[in-house]
Amino acid sequence: MNEVGGYDLEDLKVGMSAVFSKTVSEADILAFGGVSGDTQPVHFNQEYASTTMFKGRIAHGMLTASLISGVLGTKLPGPGSIYISQTLRFRAPVRIGETVHAKATVKEVLAEKKRVVIDTVCTVGDKVVLEGEAVMMPTVRK
Amino acid sequence: MNEVGGYDLEDLKVGMSAVFSKTVSEADILAFGGVSGDTQPVHFNQEYASTTMFKGRIAHGMLTASLISGVLGTKLPGPGSIYISQTLRFRAPVRIGETVHAKATVKEVLAEKKRVVIDTVCTVGDKVVLEGEAVMMPTVRK
Amino acid sequence: MNEVGGYDLEDLKVGMSAVFSKTVSEADILAFGGVSGDTQPVHFNQEYASTTMFKGRIAHGMLTASLISGVLGTKLPGPGSIYISQTLRFRAPVRIGETVHAKATVKEVLAEKKRVVIDTVCTVGDKVVLEGEAVMMPTVRK
Amino acid sequence: MNEVGGYDLEDLKVGMSAVFSKTVSEADILAFGGVSGDTQPVHFNQEYASTTMFKGRIAHGMLTASLISGVLGTKLPGPGSIYISQTLRFRAPVRIGETVHAKATVKEVLAEKKRVVIDTVCTVGDKVVLEGEAVMMPTVRK
Repeated sequence: MNEVGGYDLEDLKVGMSAVFSKTVSEADILAFGGVSGDTQPVHFNQEYASTTMFKGRIAHGMLTASLISGVLGTKLPGPGSIYISQTLRFRAPVRIGETVHAKATVKEVLAEKKRVVIDTVCTVGDKVVLEGEAVMMPTVRK
Repeated sequence: MNEVGGYDLEDLKVGMSAVFSKTVSEADILAFGGVSGDTQPVHFNQEYASTTMFKGRIAHGMLTASLISGVLGTKLPGPGSIYISQTLRFRAPVRIGETVHAKATVKEVLAEKKRVVIDTVCTVGDKVVLEGEAVMMPTVRK
Repeated sequence: MNEVGGYDLEDLKVGMSAVFSKTVSEADILAFGGVSGDTQPVHFNQEYASTTMFKGRIAHGMLTASLISGVLGTKLPGPGSIYISQTLRFRAPVRIGETVHAKATVKEVLAEKKRVVIDTVCTVGDKVVLEGEAVMMPTVRK
Repeated sequence: MNEVGGYDLEDLKVGMSAVFSKTVSEADILAFGGVSGDTQPVHFNQEYASTTMFKGRIAHGMLTASLISGVLGTKLPGPGSIYISQTLRFRAPVRIGETVHAKATVKEVLAEKKRVVIDTVCTVGDKVVLEGEAVMMPTVRK
């Protein structure tokens, strides 16, 4: 553990995992719209959204992706780690009131490069809504 | 153009581009922390952040990435398009008060698959802070 | 009354009271999570919360307590007063959509010490959800 | 550890501690004002605040107190624990830009009552700005 409570590179083993879960609310979509500038009608306009294949408003894909930042930044590797890259495949919509579970699982520890590859999957119930892979730079022991 | 002002697949040509720009504020970082659950000290704790290689608080990488959602969702392809996938390489930190320009440029139009590949780059001044590639599903003419 | 509309110490009598009421929304819980860093699953994760004794998400206890700050800071003693101390006993959960009434009642005026002791109770309908006692330093006449 | 990553009562020992730190911004004060209804001029009005003994705007005492909710709810005892009571003594003002360290230290474990008494102190640099005591009900092993 480093001084701010995150894992050092030396603590990380393949297969370790952590989850951050959050119920997505209308308030989240509104706040995310303000931060991102993404005011797409499928997120902001119930009348329009109800005419689409989604049959109603859905959360921004990047809002769901932000929960990956939540689990990586606060749990695994946690505080002190630095984001290097992320891939994201949006698999299914997330609706208001659904609870997203963002799970991070260590896939590979690249000790020499001081990087860790992390499998990142977001689910709602049994359904995968987002999947991808993160590369993080954890802290190292001094 | 579709009914909500976005480009149809048939309108999109390689090389078309659009930009969404936003000055990142402390308020954005706070709101993004609430939405994402990411309260990493490098974003929330100026004392700790000043001891890191960043020499102060920086925006969440995913917050910068959310501005890509902003340009894709509101400008190119714009309203009505659906996010399929995104890759993100975080190149440099974004500090409070800096203005990020999120630029989307059409790279490839996959007419049969009804997909468009879009180059996505975020810059602060002349510096690239984030780069990657999006795949979007635009609306098609009826 | 002082220049900013609060009571001076000399105006305060035992038994005077004031109420500030607010309906607690999902947006409040989100914003409070961002400010406080408290992303507890009982506040942010409906699935988990529904498995607890609360049977669903509840507001942060400190969010309810913040409404005491609302009544003290804006009504009694009001603008210009300074918070010295507060005790809080969390009696019952507050759910999204419930309206909390934060009531402040003057219990004791300590003229020499320039302090006032205030009974603080938060209710939802007939139910006490939070109770405690504040000590404030009001302004004094010049 | 319980299912959501918090400590069970059986894990808690006297002397265990955890810290959550946050730099308090203008955005925090604004958001907290909206949630709490506390729009006191000493928090919202720089012109008035500069005429007070504080010589400028300060954070709400309850905003600082909310960071105690942050450390208790996410770190010690962490997710799954329930807030029973809190005492707060506001010792010194917190100014915009200052970093508050909210520290929780286990003081007493009341195994029969299923409660834990936690010493809670907020500091800015070497200065204590808020101190008090929390009683929490942690999860117990099944």
